[in-house]
Amino acid sequence: MLRERFLKTRTRTQQICSPLKIEDYSVQPMTDASPPKWHLAHTTWFFEQFVLVPYKNEYSEFDKDFAYLFNSYYNNFGDRVMRPNRGLMTRPVVSEVLDYRAHVTDNVAELLAQEDCPDVVHELVELGINHEEQHQELLAYDIKSLFGNQPTFPLYGTVYCLPEEGKDQDYIKIPEGLYEVGYQGEDFHFDIEKGRHKVFLEAFEISNRLVTNGEFLEFIEAGGYADFNLWHAEGWEFINQHEVRAPLYWHKIKDQWHRYCLEGLVPVNPNEPVMHISFYEAAAYADWRGLRIPSEFEWEVASQQLDWGILWEWTSSAFLPYPRFEKKPGAVGEYNGKFMINQKVLRGASVATPEGHSRATYRNFFHPHLRWQFAGLRLAR
Amino acid sequence: MLRERFLKTRTRTQQICSPLKIEDYSVQPMTDASPPKWHLAHTTWFFEQFVLVPYKNEYSEFDKDFAYLFNSYYNNFGDRVMRPNRGLMTRPVVSEVLDYRAHVTDNVAELLAQEDCPDVVHELVELGINHEEQHQELLAYDIKSLFGNQPTFPLYGTVYCLPEEGKDQDYIKIPEGLYEVGYQGEDFHFDIEKGRHKVFLEAFEISNRLVTNGEFLEFIEAGGYADFNLWHAEGWEFINQHEVRAPLYWHKIKDQWHRYCLEGLVPVNPNEPVMHISFYEAAAYADWRGLRIPSEFEWEVASQQLDWGILWEWTSSAFLPYPRFEKKPGAVGEYNGKFMINQKVLRGASVATPEGHSRATYRNFFHPHLRWQFAGLRLAR
Amino acid sequence: MLRERFLKTRTRTQQICSPLKIEDYSVQPMTDASPPKWHLAHTTWFFEQFVLVPYKNEYSEFDKDFAYLFNSYYNNFGDRVMRPNRGLMTRPVVSEVLDYRAHVTDNVAELLAQEDCPDVVHELVELGINHEEQHQELLAYDIKSLFGNQPTFPLYGTVYCLPEEGKDQDYIKIPEGLYEVGYQGEDFHFDIEKGRHKVFLEAFEISNRLVTNGEFLEFIEAGGYADFNLWHAEGWEFINQHEVRAPLYWHKIKDQWHRYCLEGLVPVNPNEPVMHISFYEAAAYADWRGLRIPSEFEWEVASQQLDWGILWEWTSSAFLPYPRFEKKPGAVGEYNGKFMINQKVLRGASVATPEGHSRATYRNFFHPHLRWQFAGLRLAR
Amino acid sequence: MLRERFLKTRTRTQQICSPLKIEDYSVQPMTDASPPKWHLAHTTWFFEQFVLVPYKNEYSEFDKDFAYLFNSYYNNFGDRVMRPNRGLMTRPVVSEVLDYRAHVTDNVAELLAQEDCPDVVHELVELGINHEEQHQELLAYDIKSLFGNQPTFPLYGTVYCLPEEGKDQDYIKIPEGLYEVGYQGEDFHFDIEKGRHKVFLEAFEISNRLVTNGEFLEFIEAGGYADFNLWHAEGWEFINQHEVRAPLYWHKIKDQWHRYCLEGLVPVNPNEPVMHISFYEAAAYADWRGLRIPSEFEWEVASQQLDWGILWEWTSSAFLPYPRFEKKPGAVGEYNGKFMINQKVLRGASVATPEGHSRATYRNFFHPHLRWQFAGLRLAR
Repeated sequence: MLRERFLKTRTRTQQICSPLKIEDYSVQPMTDASPPKWHLAHTTWFFEQFVLVPYKNEYSEFDKDFAYLFNSYYNNFGDRVMRPNRGLMTRPVVSEVLDYRAHVTDNVAELLAQEDCPDVVHELVELGINHEEQHQELLAYDIKSLFGNQPTFPLYGTVYCLPEEGKDQDYIKIPEGLYEVGYQGEDFHFDIEKGRHKVFLEAFEISNRLVTNGEFLEFIEAGGYADFNLWHAEGWEFINQHEVRAPLYWHKIKDQWHRYCLEGLVPVNPNEPVMHISFYEAAAYADWRGLRIPSEFEWEVASQQLDWGILWEWTSSAFLPYPRFEKKPGAVGEYNGKFMINQKVLRGASVATPEGHSRATYRNFFHPHLRWQFAGLRLAR
Repeated sequence: MLRERFLKTRTRTQQICSPLKIEDYSVQPMTDASPPKWHLAHTTWFFEQFVLVPYKNEYSEFDKDFAYLFNSYYNNFGDRVMRPNRGLMTRPVVSEVLDYRAHVTDNVAELLAQEDCPDVVHELVELGINHEEQHQELLAYDIKSLFGNQPTFPLYGTVYCLPEEGKDQDYIKIPEGLYEVGYQGEDFHFDIEKGRHKVFLEAFEISNRLVTNGEFLEFIEAGGYADFNLWHAEGWEFINQHEVRAPLYWHKIKDQWHRYCLEGLVPVNPNEPVMHISFYEAAAYADWRGLRIPSEFEWEVASQQLDWGILWEWTSSAFLPYPRFEKKPGAVGEYNGKFMINQKVLRGASVATPEGHSRATYRNFFHPHLRWQFAGLRLAR
Repeated sequence: MLRERFLKTRTRTQQICSPLKIEDYSVQPMTDASPPKWHLAHTTWFFEQFVLVPYKNEYSEFDKDFAYLFNSYYNNFGDRVMRPNRGLMTRPVVSEVLDYRAHVTDNVAELLAQEDCPDVVHELVELGINHEEQHQELLAYDIKSLFGNQPTFPLYGTVYCLPEEGKDQDYIKIPEGLYEVGYQGEDFHFDIEKGRHKVFLEAFEISNRLVTNGEFLEFIEAGGYADFNLWHAEGWEFINQHEVRAPLYWHKIKDQWHRYCLEGLVPVNPNEPVMHISFYEAAAYADWRGLRIPSEFEWEVASQQLDWGILWEWTSSAFLPYPRFEKKPGAVGEYNGKFMINQKVLRGASVATPEGHSRATYRNFFHPHLRWQFAGLRLAR
Repeated sequence: MLRERFLKTRTRTQQICSPLKIEDYSVQPMTDASPPKWHLAHTTWFFEQFVLVPYKNEYSEFDKDFAYLFNSYYNNFGDRVMRPNRGLMTRPVVSEVLDYRAHVTDNVAELLAQEDCPDVVHELVELGINHEEQHQELLAYDIKSLFGNQPTFPLYGTVYCLPEEGKDQDYIKIPEGLYEVGYQGEDFHFDIEKGRHKVFLEAFEISNRLVTNGEFLEFIEAGGYADFNLWHAEGWEFINQHEVRAPLYWHKIKDQWHRYCLEGLVPVNPNEPVMHISFYEAAAYADWRGLRIPSEFEWEVASQQLDWGILWEWTSSAFLPYPRFEKKPGAVGEYNGKFMINQKVLRGASVATPEGHSRATYRNFFHPHLRWQFAGLRLAR
């Protein structure tokens, strides 16, 4: 069954790329994004370096150079192509990367089919699947960034469209109490979710739905982007330096707000949840409404009563280790721990999250200024 | 008695500057620091704008331009000289700023002596005293930065010297429990300390003393600055970009580590607490020792059993609002709330902190890369 | 005959791209370079905007957006994609750009075949051919930059290889005199060559051949890159900031200097002319030899006795207007005049220059720090 | 007599600083400028290092550190304080620098009074006087920059005021011919003026007066700063990046143009020559008038018929070596040669130029974007 999930995951990554032209695969639209070809190759590199090289008998690497070319940030694996230069790599070409994928997929599948396949391989393949699912989501972000920065706004498809937010505004009440948070169980989870632990929460109320484009437009029209009292000092500096006056991908055309979604440039639908806002914008909006952003623990405690999964939701929590967190030694230990600074936790999942990838204890994280991820906002008070 | 404290505070600020030459007052050694003259003037501006202009009958401003020149970050007061340009202001000269100080000090003292002086003035003067005390501490940092960047390493004096750390290493045990943190009481405190609230802490142990230079030297000599596994990704980038290989003000001269303290360039004393390390260095050191940095709540809960007050102590906590935190409207509301992003909390006090200024619930905060403040490290496990 | 030359030029541009993979067309390896696809489209845009739109009856533009997408620096044509963003344009795809080329080529050919085709069209097509020839040369530079920055150093082909420099070192003597320089005649030439005028030259001697790799290696091995006395202040800053220690594309591998040429990474051949050096390096080398770089007028006066055409040759002359130079009004006037600042003149031609494109009065120009163009060095005394 | 000139020069430098407050001496308003204290010390350093250390018996340096602190760009003298950090040096204080000046002045005067004082000392003192005169002029620029960037626009004095331009516009005709340019004679001159040589000039006409503020205002009001056709590409980028819309130190206050001159902020006088324009602005202005900037040789040939000396005049010439130019070995050789790139020649003199310092063959030079020097514009055709 792991073998089937593995194969399905490998196939799905390529399906996400199917609307692309060859020209689209190698270009990096901004430093935070990576070219689609790089995602295809790096997820493959992960299986090759973590699974096949150490555990497959007589495995021969597809290409010695790829270990260097497609390492992302694992210093333990030595030199790597720096992130801002990923978009210069026109070679290997797409077809070679697809060959690389086939080679590694076949070998991993073969290894998994072996009777004596050790447990550690199962664990690493499970990690590799989850890793590749994360890159499936990043692929959606990066393709949107690439297409959204084309002067021609090309069509990708409708697969990542958001449903309208149909519910009336309501607040779910959670009483004061000592709650348990963090992952508990036997299934796959990341190290950063672990350390099931108690937190004391004061009574709070959390919205039953996400903030919509229509509501956010009110903030824009009320001059929210021009009132420094609403902003963090760094947020104020950020929006002014980058001339941010609306969510990412929004364009005002003849007095009408439009946004690039992967279907093209369309008028902003007031009933859809607002997306592509930074934490700074989320916080300013909340302040303007006289409300606040929930913490990650408030979110987790309320999660069973929430309807979540359309957009990642900013929380007020900084990304910090849970009690008893331990970094694993070596390269796997680089996975998450070293990013625990200056980042905000997001909870939930988005339309770009592979099914079954997320869960109530899942901790996603981004820098507060970032906007290209599929993130929205739920308020609390 | 408030009047006496006010006058004493005003005098002390000028005493801190007494070892300076006129040339030293106007120069800004780096963007994060301000020229001493600016501190003298800005603390005065605070009393003039917040107290005298609104509450003193027929008060006439010392100089209309000063409202613009010595505003720090209060957007509500309109335009201001941007921080990186503070070091260009050679005029008004020092003697004019001292006249400005005298003028404002006299007027505030006079206002405080009035029988009908309203309560709000007492509150604002209290805030202004605490504000000026914070600048007294910043003055020490900025003078050290100025002198420590002179090729000639001038002498300031011995007033900020650190005592040796005499205690044997020991750990104080704190049991698991639901604790209360945050300020409670009637005395002066900042809004960010308020919101006395419960936190659940797992059992932990906290060191009875600060990390020393000698211990930190072991980290340096073991190659700690060269082992990426110990560092946050951003910390690793920071130390490599800025070629950080030791605490700030340390210089290796003929194989012997020296450090600039305000007495001049002296050999590093292994028994003194290490200071002038960034959060990144603190975290890498803790990781190398297999220990960790305590959270601000662990620190606060343990604080009665700790011997603190030599150096501010980095905590693992991000600077975030407490439950029920409310930003005050207008300029006073800009004091703290807008800095609640990408900063780490420090607890305790330092040799540069005015007596009585800090307390167990006091929350200081700096960006994780900053090193010029008087900060050290206490470990936990 | 113009029609034939036009068609031949259009075909040759595409031939230069024939060794490329689709992935190679859209990527921009550095700000000074442009993606190959952009060159293909921009040269086409030039004919469309300058020839077809104004002079072809009932011509309909291939795509309205392309006027914006493929404008280079002609402010008179309105908004344009800024140079650093050219590498983001994955759309239109290569096949669409080739369709665009075919469409425009056919229409221009048709226009040229018309009996009543006006003279101005002939002039503009002539300009367009020369413009496209310049881009053919830039294509070679930019492809080399793209391939030379690939970690895999791909093979392009042998077409741009340099012959060995076979001649013994000798100096050609030119007597003092009043000489005439600048273009005179009826054939195509650029406005910047015009203004045939007299210059007085003192007697000088000019080398019969270019500086070779072997000679330049002596400079490297003598510590030329480390001796500030040899360098312009800005050159010294440039090489240290960018860690320039050898010509561009040189790599020291196991104590042996190699260079990327379009055939791959090969050992440096000491008998080939040195190429890919900046003006700063050229000047430092000349100073070290106790010789100097000739002026553009010395070069032109000596040109009949020189064997030139392998590499563009740096001259000591700044790129300045000749007497009686006049900028044409409108977009054509933007062609050259506005670059007459901070640039150095290069004379001659290179192996990448289309046959018949250059001449003795031809003035090429680049900023003194640039190294990716096919430039070498001839000395004088 | 050299001794008297030396003493007079030393005194005058200090007189230029007499309107300054102590606070003004150490601050550096921008990277291109230096603090007044630095000029006082560096001109002294020059005499100490070039004259006293090598030629005065038993001379002991005033302070060993000063050789490092006050070196400007002489790499041959080893490490130096980098230009952008000169403004951090509050120590030595002004009185110490004045002591340093007195010490060196006395020693040089004593050496010059010795009967056996060698010729080379006379030559070096002559060079030192001219060097100090150049710094006297830079002092005026840098003090203006410091005061002009103070929010309070302090008063310096009237000594550098410009006279009104009284002459009617006229053009002086110079016939075609072979002219001689460059220094010839026995008096002091810089190496870059030498190499008296012939140049051929076509007939030209040169204005009898400088462009005035009134004329330049016409350019501003005609939208000259907004018409890209008038600008070099780099000039266009420069003015837009830095939002240059008028000469430096101009401020529009209630629809009336004012400018900071050293007397304070005054309305722009249309009859004064325009000053503080970059070469880019000069060139755009000339283009707009349908005229051009003369070359340095045209200027020199016409100089006897010109009334010059109020402002340095931009020429169209790049700063390049004359025929037979030779860089002297060692530190003196660093004086000028290494700046011969990307700079424009200015001719004439300004109100800040010490009497007798300049001459018709004198070649001043600045980067084309610089505006803080006392430069104006004379047109030709």
